[in-house]
Amino acid sequence: MKWKVTVIVRLKEGLNDPEGRVIGNALRNLGYAVENLRVPKHFEFELESEEPEEEVEEMCRKLLANPLIHDYEYSIEPVS
Amino acid sequence: MKWKVTVIVRLKEGLNDPEGRVIGNALRNLGYAVENLRVPKHFEFELESEEPEEEVEEMCRKLLANPLIHDYEYSIEPVS
Repeated sequence: MKWKVTVIVRLKEGLNDPEGRVIGNALRNLGYAVENLRVPKHFEFELESEEPEEEVEEMCRKLLANPLIHDYEYSIEPVS
Repeated sequence: MKWKVTVIVRLKEGLNDPEGRVIGNALRNLGYAVENLRVPKHFEFELESEEPEEEVEEMCRKLLANPLIHDYEYSIEPVS
């Protein structure tokens, strides 16, 4: 069966996000009252699988995230 | 008033996403039946504003996205 998967990988609370800091500064320089800008990693893909939840969990642990520094979440929906 | 904003910026359909291709290949090499992996840009921030929708739309057009090559979407929720 085919699934549409979205994975979002965030740096753990308290860890520095230099890209986010740069973009946040740029937006403040343009006059916007922006705070705490973060740039999580976002992956979207289709997956052919009979066990999508197990496989996506494995992909996160093996490749998409580093559990030492990242938290992750995902959504899995059937492709119509 | 304070808002929690999420902006997702995607390459337009048909444009090459080299980072996505590399990660998709890596997942297939690990044995997962992954297709069409894309890596949109994902921004999360807090915004102090009386006109959040207008400001976020401007930020997308001025800085976060390039309308020639990107589509974008956003969500804006009040911070409790």
